[in-house]
Amino acid sequence: MATNNSQHISQQFEQELQDIRSRVLAMGGLVEQQVGNALKSLKKADIELARTVMAEDNLVNDLEMKIDEECIQIIALRQPTASDLRLVTVILKAITDLERIGDEAYNIAQKTLNLTANEHSKKNYSELSKLGNHVRGLLRDALDAFARLDVDAALNVAREAQEADAEYESFMRSMLTYMMEDPRTISRVLDLMWSARALERITAHTHNLCEYVIYLVEGKDVRHLTVEKMEKLLERDDE
Amino acid sequence: MATNNSQHISQQFEQELQDIRSRVLAMGGLVEQQVGNALKSLKKADIELARTVMAEDNLVNDLEMKIDEECIQIIALRQPTASDLRLVTVILKAITDLERIGDEAYNIAQKTLNLTANEHSKKNYSELSKLGNHVRGLLRDALDAFARLDVDAALNVAREAQEADAEYESFMRSMLTYMMEDPRTISRVLDLMWSARALERITAHTHNLCEYVIYLVEGKDVRHLTVEKMEKLLERDDE
Repeated sequence: MATNNSQHISQQFEQELQDIRSRVLAMGGLVEQQVGNALKSLKKADIELARTVMAEDNLVNDLEMKIDEECIQIIALRQPTASDLRLVTVILKAITDLERIGDEAYNIAQKTLNLTANEHSKKNYSELSKLGNHVRGLLRDALDAFARLDVDAALNVAREAQEADAEYESFMRSMLTYMMEDPRTISRVLDLMWSARALERITAHTHNLCEYVIYLVEGKDVRHLTVEKMEKLLERDDE
Repeated sequence: MATNNSQHISQQFEQELQDIRSRVLAMGGLVEQQVGNALKSLKKADIELARTVMAEDNLVNDLEMKIDEECIQIIALRQPTASDLRLVTVILKAITDLERIGDEAYNIAQKTLNLTANEHSKKNYSELSKLGNHVRGLLRDALDAFARLDVDAALNVAREAQEADAEYESFMRSMLTYMMEDPRTISRVLDLMWSARALERITAHTHNLCEYVIYLVEGKDVRHLTVEKMEKLLERDDE
């Protein structure tokens, strides 16, 4: 009877952990959609869509607060240890990153409103869009890696994030030149630069998600390491 | 004997919580110093100091990782509940904010290098310095509120953070005008804008610290609320 009971509790606990992981992934899906819609609103000068993204930011915030509360409940009631505890503390951190990604989607949508209000030129939108699609793809891949606890996929995203950073730097340099050549564009180009900066921040948070996957699976804290050092630590540098 | 033993364990646990709080405050002190030195390096065009700030960012990162590990150890070994558990989970979050503030100090120091490398004009430095001192003061006050678990002080900082945000917006508008009037300054003014942006991010993280103090003392999650709503929730709106 006692065994049945503790088996029952353990199954219940497993289910709770499973549920909370699903909720994090649902939150990730929502955030990814917010980023996608923010980029779409910018590309299509779609004011309605930009406003929807801004209005729905509170859904992301609510999810963060709910999952946060659930994690603390799980720690208090289940007193998890080892890998279960790692999972719960990682979720506490991951949802902060997801919430901030949501904030950056909000920021991009806000720039859409500025850009569409002030004029109708769409110069440089395609470069920004390209960067945006790249960053959004990395976010999706990082969420997949998190769902499958796939260290190699996480390392791939971390590696590709460096390319996205290089694209960002190159976009910023070209915007600077652009502004200097035609100062009438300053205000508009600044909005594009702020949007690009939001994408750079999303990449940084996406990179954090990859670090969490590695920590969960390998138990190694790889924060603040270069991708090369990560690979070395995980002995994946000779592939 | 059993009582003595459990008393002993409880005292030990109290001491551990006290130690970890002290370490967070030490980390806060280091981060505040990094912000102060980054601002000083910018104001005095002090390349050496800027380099020191950048080099010492890893001290902040190391502290974050160590405290993080200690928190997880405490949860695993002591299985804290109620207010002790709140404290540990808040520390897990607060050190992330402190680490990001350290990153922003790094960013400001990096802009100092750009600015001093490219030219010697110090125009607009005094406005940026003023904003910087304001933001640094808020960070110090938030850390004090955290040390003393002082909800009223935390609310004051949250309120004043709004003023710092308004100062930031006004600085950004004046920089935009400045750039448009004299396009030769674009590159330099952009560096000043990025530094101001770093200060705005520091204010946002400082605001988070205030929310943690309120959560620790009152058990209320006030994230994503306006200061007015916070005051109402805490029934401090009729002072």
